[in-house]
Amino acid sequence: MTKPHILVCNDDGITAPGIANLIEAVKDFGTVTVVAPDSPQSGMGHAISVGKPLRLYEEKLSHNRTGWACSGTPVDCVKLATGVLMKQKPDLLVSGINHGANSSISVVYSGTMSAAMEGAIEGIPSIGFSLCDFSHSADFTAAREVVQKIVAKALDDPMPKGSLLNVNIPSLSLDQIRGIKITRQAVGRWVEEFDQRVDPYGRNYYWLTGKFKIEDEGEDTDEWALANGFVSVCPVQFDLTAHHALPFLNHWHLKLK
Amino acid sequence: MTKPHILVCNDDGITAPGIANLIEAVKDFGTVTVVAPDSPQSGMGHAISVGKPLRLYEEKLSHNRTGWACSGTPVDCVKLATGVLMKQKPDLLVSGINHGANSSISVVYSGTMSAAMEGAIEGIPSIGFSLCDFSHSADFTAAREVVQKIVAKALDDPMPKGSLLNVNIPSLSLDQIRGIKITRQAVGRWVEEFDQRVDPYGRNYYWLTGKFKIEDEGEDTDEWALANGFVSVCPVQFDLTAHHALPFLNHWHLKLK
Repeated sequence: MTKPHILVCNDDGITAPGIANLIEAVKDFGTVTVVAPDSPQSGMGHAISVGKPLRLYEEKLSHNRTGWACSGTPVDCVKLATGVLMKQKPDLLVSGINHGANSSISVVYSGTMSAAMEGAIEGIPSIGFSLCDFSHSADFTAAREVVQKIVAKALDDPMPKGSLLNVNIPSLSLDQIRGIKITRQAVGRWVEEFDQRVDPYGRNYYWLTGKFKIEDEGEDTDEWALANGFVSVCPVQFDLTAHHALPFLNHWHLKLK
Repeated sequence: MTKPHILVCNDDGITAPGIANLIEAVKDFGTVTVVAPDSPQSGMGHAISVGKPLRLYEEKLSHNRTGWACSGTPVDCVKLATGVLMKQKPDLLVSGINHGANSSISVVYSGTMSAAMEGAIEGIPSIGFSLCDFSHSADFTAAREVVQKIVAKALDDPMPKGSLLNVNIPSLSLDQIRGIKITRQAVGRWVEEFDQRVDPYGRNYYWLTGKFKIEDEGEDTDEWALANGFVSVCPVQFDLTAHHALPFLNHWHLKLK
């Protein structure tokens, strides 16, 4: 078997410690290509750059590695990687390791997860990794171990087509982590609390802040797993059809004329 | 019953003809609040503004109406509308009318649909409308009629919680439209074809272009409906869990130690 080709991306930017740790964790599994934003792109969701051109710069990384910094969004990175840089489709895409959790509804805002979703849309087995620690100096030791366990499985026994993985890792030592749970996305949302200020010219401006509110008591969710010391592995899909709502809508008997 | 309060937003910007037509279509159903980006935000997906402050400006619209232009993304608009501008949660959110289709996988890139999804996440019945015509001078006559039919139903008999609607309207006259189909999201993707150029300083840059490729022969999809002259009404959800993949993943028997 030829060595697998692994595409590494993120949303915190190519210089973030999280991506350095992700490269370190996957480097022995195959040939690694790194394409990541040239600046932090948290909260970019599935944004793409429409109407503005994109740049790719070669970038020196630690351990004498080379990567590509991209001027666009995390999804742009994946599109440029597969459309311009890579001769053939990668065997695996890994995104992260995000500085901060991407559990529950955060999956829809996350650039890390959107990069992974873009990979899956293009038919590449794809996994997003997040560590529940926002700090720049977070300890990624246990997270690297988790990455290796899951990447080994994903290369050996690929996930069903049309799905990707959202892996969230609690901020604990390997000894403290109680295990790995297969989970579903918890019901929850961010409740906004805007910080309204007045600029030196007398005009209002607003900082978006918010608090996460969980609305789910299930013990099979990503939030439950993290709160109880487990790694959460949640399968994600990009078929957004609310299949359960189809019978209800047929009931509307919509007619134009 | 008190008059319903309707929040109107879009991704093409507050001056786009599509939003003017949407306001016109819904104005008689209740009290209308308009909050839309101050510049085009197509392809913004579910991006939010992290680390930069947001502005809101009062804007004069046609027919002596007033709206709010926001410096952020479509999702920022919804968050500012419900978090800052509106005293109580709106009874309905409508987003669009987008200039161009948002069928199949385009739903994940679309700012129009992400604004509607944000509404649904906040518990507001929400609908995104798109007309399959990119032109600035598109004829929205039939689209306005479609909006009115669907808004009447949605106010009368709200959709199941956790779902929103993705409505795509073919670029046809009302006489030519064959009816309304309840659909699922077609399997398909955008295949990138980057246009690589060299700037005056000898450096490469890339324009993202692409072709939509359908990979679905079903006659129950949004793409099929549009190709056959029907309005497509597709229910969308923000629980991205790939529930069908859970048994497979449990089969992996992931263990850390």
